[in-house]
Amino acid sequence: MTTNIPDDHPRAASLRTREAMKDAVAAGLVHPTGLIAHGRGEAFDYLLGERTPPEAREAVAEAARLLRAAKQPVLSLNGNVVALAARQAVAVQKAFPRLVLEVNLFHRTPERVEALVAVVEAAGATKGSVLGRAPDFRIPNLSSDRALCSKAGLGGSDVVVVPLEDGDRCQALVAMGKTVIAIDLNPLSRTAVAAHVTIVDELTRALPALAAALKTSSPGAVGGTYDNADVLRRVKARMAAGLGA
Amino acid sequence: MTTNIPDDHPRAASLRTREAMKDAVAAGLVHPTGLIAHGRGEAFDYLLGERTPPEAREAVAEAARLLRAAKQPVLSLNGNVVALAARQAVAVQKAFPRLVLEVNLFHRTPERVEALVAVVEAAGATKGSVLGRAPDFRIPNLSSDRALCSKAGLGGSDVVVVPLEDGDRCQALVAMGKTVIAIDLNPLSRTAVAAHVTIVDELTRALPALAAALKTSSPGAVGGTYDNADVLRRVKARMAAGLGA
Repeated sequence: MTTNIPDDHPRAASLRTREAMKDAVAAGLVHPTGLIAHGRGEAFDYLLGERTPPEAREAVAEAARLLRAAKQPVLSLNGNVVALAARQAVAVQKAFPRLVLEVNLFHRTPERVEALVAVVEAAGATKGSVLGRAPDFRIPNLSSDRALCSKAGLGGSDVVVVPLEDGDRCQALVAMGKTVIAIDLNPLSRTAVAAHVTIVDELTRALPALAAALKTSSPGAVGGTYDNADVLRRVKARMAAGLGA
Repeated sequence: MTTNIPDDHPRAASLRTREAMKDAVAAGLVHPTGLIAHGRGEAFDYLLGERTPPEAREAVAEAARLLRAAKQPVLSLNGNVVALAARQAVAVQKAFPRLVLEVNLFHRTPERVEALVAVVEAAGATKGSVLGRAPDFRIPNLSSDRALCSKAGLGGSDVVVVPLEDGDRCQALVAMGKTVIAIDLNPLSRTAVAAHVTIVDELTRALPALAAALKTSSPGAVGGTYDNADVLRRVKARMAAGLGA
């Protein structure tokens, strides 16, 4: 795909990302409705001034603390996550090698899983280490193939990072008793509200921040002073200010 | 395309629209990046509670007044507009028969123009009445084929309605001295800010409201008491309240 986005365009990064997402649909990696979800995220990121808010830094620090204390920490990858940030997801795993990467799709087909695993491997993941091809577990109370996952991954995990997650699945994971860390630009989404820790930030900014935090943080259990509802309240106030209202 | 969206789903309308947009991409009517734009709109509509705000009613009333006073009123149609609201666009034209419908595309190909004109005709427009197939005019200071339009349409118009318009083209139309009425869910967009009248509402709600207003309003010139900056300020405050902040 040839593009003519000048480097000095004020929105060059955002425009290049749009092109990459469009190409990922053409390659069968991203479901077309994933582009609509991406657009929703863009709108909320615009209200943040396309910058990581301090509240996301707090959430990232708490996420790193919880992941370091986890028995089976997992980072879930879907089509949009891989298309936007396969390299950054692999870097999180390199920073914290116990972290399991698993491809989990809403619109699951074996071909899409295979193609996405291949992209994550091409981005540097150890060959054969990315789960998702052979699901052997179902998330309870969740219809359709989006319930499928791996016991060695999401199924048996105690702490999971779910970037750009579907609200139903996020709620089902919380109902299973897992500690859920969401990365979601919409602080009003069911995912953002249901998760224990919500990183309200754009993915290619959030994942490197998480990788950095994992290298330096100490492990910690749930029940500290972190208050996700307060984090969400403050980030919503920040977006309201971004509306200039 | 078969879907399984239950009628009683709280977001059934929004989910059906997503499916329709996806199908419109598959049919070559909508450019893939149009899905991203649609998602951005969804986010802002969410902040409105997916309801027409009073500010949009004020803008619609002013738009109808200006259109009734126009010499060559035009309603511009792009891929997203046709995919979302071809029927509603035709209904505006039926309510106000002097209104010219013209297909204007950012990513213009003769095939896409042809396909979109066919959809608008199938939605009830008089055969041969929809402009766009044979552009004979260029909007000044606008690069690429998105500058192409018709003298009997956008080119020679004095008052234009541009739903879901590109910021550059909106600014270029304003610079030509035209009176520009935008329909845009993002009150911060360059289009929303540049237009003389900005209807901040979802298209399938805004166009029927415009059709109704055109049937009853009196013509009026620019320069009344309508204050678009104030309308935008109030709708932004409403969205900020929608953030619960």
